[in-house]
Amino acid sequence: MFTHIEKIRVRYGETDKMGFVYHGNYALYYEVSRVELLRKLGINYNDVENSGIGLPVVKFEIDFFKPALYDEIISVEVSLNDKPLSRLVFYYKCYNEQNELLNQGKVILAFINLENKKPVKCPPQIENIFKNLH
Amino acid sequence: MFTHIEKIRVRYGETDKMGFVYHGNYALYYEVSRVELLRKLGINYNDVENSGIGLPVVKFEIDFFKPALYDEIISVEVSLNDKPLSRLVFYYKCYNEQNELLNQGKVILAFINLENKKPVKCPPQIENIFKNLH
Amino acid sequence: MFTHIEKIRVRYGETDKMGFVYHGNYALYYEVSRVELLRKLGINYNDVENSGIGLPVVKFEIDFFKPALYDEIISVEVSLNDKPLSRLVFYYKCYNEQNELLNQGKVILAFINLENKKPVKCPPQIENIFKNLH
Amino acid sequence: MFTHIEKIRVRYGETDKMGFVYHGNYALYYEVSRVELLRKLGINYNDVENSGIGLPVVKFEIDFFKPALYDEIISVEVSLNDKPLSRLVFYYKCYNEQNELLNQGKVILAFINLENKKPVKCPPQIENIFKNLH
Repeated sequence: MFTHIEKIRVRYGETDKMGFVYHGNYALYYEVSRVELLRKLGINYNDVENSGIGLPVVKFEIDFFKPALYDEIISVEVSLNDKPLSRLVFYYKCYNEQNELLNQGKVILAFINLENKKPVKCPPQIENIFKNLH
Repeated sequence: MFTHIEKIRVRYGETDKMGFVYHGNYALYYEVSRVELLRKLGINYNDVENSGIGLPVVKFEIDFFKPALYDEIISVEVSLNDKPLSRLVFYYKCYNEQNELLNQGKVILAFINLENKKPVKCPPQIENIFKNLH
Repeated sequence: MFTHIEKIRVRYGETDKMGFVYHGNYALYYEVSRVELLRKLGINYNDVENSGIGLPVVKFEIDFFKPALYDEIISVEVSLNDKPLSRLVFYYKCYNEQNELLNQGKVILAFINLENKKPVKCPPQIENIFKNLH
Repeated sequence: MFTHIEKIRVRYGETDKMGFVYHGNYALYYEVSRVELLRKLGINYNDVENSGIGLPVVKFEIDFFKPALYDEIISVEVSLNDKPLSRLVFYYKCYNEQNELLNQGKVILAFINLENKKPVKCPPQIENIFKNLH
């Protein structure tokens, strides 16, 4: 199981008139945290795309318990605990500075061929990285 | 069961470098469609907030099958089939112009008191609207 | 001079904690209005890109007088009054439902070759459309 | 003259199908940089709002020379060189990792009373901070 915690400060433009972070913006926070987890594991998402493989989101799921507020620094904890086959499954927990659980979620990415947009298996260079990490 | 289909044209700024609508932006499309469903039922979300009641999203869940592309007009079908108690549960299906199912999802909103941000029951004026609709 | 008025309803996720539309989101409103103006003139922006030509924004300028609020339907009036050479210059005025001027702005787009990202002149098929419109 | 450089990594969801950062998203980058400049000067924007004063954007202007790309770390240099009266004027220059100038801009914020949304002068506590900085 691989884990990363990314600290992200809430931007003004990410709040809505209720004074909370608009729920759709957690997609961006979750994205940033998993990209940094992958980078830590030796996988640069940009390089993956440049090799012709994309990783679109095929499932996004989030339960909200408390809102994040403007200017707060939130901790987006992401875990990747599956051996990747054709999909990467990320689990999330997001905390505020008082260490209160704000929300938790799951995001699944699937490998595709960027040219024909068809699903493909995990490319060998990424599979090898995961093998060596275990 | 109440249903509404909202047609929404994809904006350039809503796409990402993969050429698809960024997954986080479906939060906006889903929002627009349920607000129009509520309006059709006689509930103006702005009036609800002005009466001191908010309806933040407490659950957001979406499965993606195919991407929406720039300039496409997508149909966001939303259904509300629960008698509202403290929560409103919306079900979604989103189609492109070829009538292909792009994604489906579920969004749950909970009533809160906007002043103290505490959960409250469905306010009587909204409960009455739903009672009269059945 | 070519003009179009696009009516756009403000989405919740486009507001910020001040209760106003976040200023950065006018980029989207302005985009939608000029794309519809071009469509009316017989220019489909998607087709332009598919022919290998892009039109990135090279200047964006906006003066704000009054905020747009949630759920308001605003009128985004766009004018294109230059004969296009290598650039398209759009002028904007944005009004609320009370016909109050909310903001005005200018956006300049430049033609580029999408492959090498270098500036190019207005492609002949677009130049011809403009010639025939005069 | 007060200056700050904020380094910001481009998120995937901030790019568009051209592969560039969508121009409207620079509003967020510029916002983040000026908020950190103000914080460095001893002004917490959140505290300003909590004291009943808002600072909406009244002018936003940006010239684009080169696009920022996904995953790049860009440097958003902001300068505040006016003695604040009723407005704060910020100047921007934005660079990529190769130190190429990507864009430059100007953003003007005006003090308002958050309750009645009317313009007000710079509040004394902020005026004093600026006086002591000179």
